Amino acid sequence: MKVLLIGASGAIGRAVHQRLGQQHEVLTAGRHSGQFRVDITDQASVRRLLAEVGPIDALVSTTGDVHFGPLAEMTDEQFNVGLQGKLLGQVRLALLGQHVLRNGGSITLTAGIVSREPIRLGANATAVNAAIEGFARGAAIELPRGMRINVVSPAVLTESLAAYGPYMPGMESVPAERVALAYQRSVEGAQTGRTYFVE
Amino acid sequence: MKVLLIGASGAIGRAVHQRLGQQHEVLTAGRHSGQFRVDITDQASVRRLLAEVGPIDALVSTTGDVHFGPLAEMTDEQFNVGLQGKLLGQVRLALLGQHVLRNGGSITLTAGIVSREPIRLGANATAVNAAIEGFARGAAIELPRGMRINVVSPAVLTESLAAYGPYMPGMESVPAERVALAYQRSVEGAQTGRTYFVE
Repeated sequence: MKVLLIGASGAIGRAVHQRLGQQHEVLTAGRHSGQFRVDITDQASVRRLLAEVGPIDALVSTTGDVHFGPLAEMTDEQFNVGLQGKLLGQVRLALLGQHVLRNGGSITLTAGIVSREPIRLGANATAVNAAIEGFARGAAIELPRGMRINVVSPAVLTESLAAYGPYMPGMESVPAERVALAYQRSVEGAQTGRTYFVE
Repeated sequence: MKVLLIGASGAIGRAVHQRLGQQHEVLTAGRHSGQFRVDITDQASVRRLLAEVGPIDALVSTTGDVHFGPLAEMTDEQFNVGLQGKLLGQVRLALLGQHVLRNGGSITLTAGIVSREPIRLGANATAVNAAIEGFARGAAIELPRGMRINVVSPAVLTESLAAYGPYMPGMESVPAERVALAYQRSVEGAQTGRTYFVE
């Protein structure tokens, strides 16, 4: 398969690249690195990327920004950061990506455990991740030509525990290598509209 | 209690007004009608409304636009309609409203059944409604002073079946009067972070 991986330089992206690269041709894209440059918040940038890579069998996104901060001080502009970043950014990849996917191709987006297990400072992340899961449920029933869409929702990565652990007290971490398996399930499996929780 | 009801002229809003009005002082607001005018997509408009009504015991929102349309033709701009409307519009009410709520006050937002039961043309609505449920889960654990936040997620209203029924084949409808009970549960009850499904 020809797989386009957006967010390839992140902790999850690198593990997904390693896992899927064993059997597939993986094209890497990112804001500042990778074979292709793309800003998922910019429609023209995404269109350019998809035109460059041409027909693909799988689109995998492991990227997107959310806002973390206390609810009591949160502004609507801050909340919109996650809506325009991790949510609409990934939805944009799916909406435009559906037109360059081959028959039976798949889209895999990334959410996160705080959709089910809220944490302090995380109201934006909880909403955004829940929306991504919802988008996949909704989009799955309309995709034609055997195309599929799924979401991977990982717990905090063991590799990122030093940075994020203090915000998620007592929550178990998962190694990126385990998270990468869920992307493989989505890309090579047959399910659609699913969220794969890796906890 | 002093209850601010935004979206009071809609089918749900009218039923909520009737139900809560039996025991509470209900202030009505809407884009084109009600005692107060407000555009929930406009920060200044929401600020003005909240300054006018002053301290309240409950904020209830039964309003907000989403985009309905086929996934194959959906653009990111169209998807953003629901993000800026029903999602960020209601989140804005909550983020600003928390500062005018009295101790123990509550916020009640509106989602919809398509978050769990996707329909054709509904990918935006599924994502938006799931995000609203997620926002309440996330915000609930951070609200101080005994404040609460919940969501009501109704099935299609019996009163709206002529207009929306064709898009939801075989799905059971609920009378607005039953839906209004869930808002009463949220406002007068003690739970927080909950979504009340009325199906």
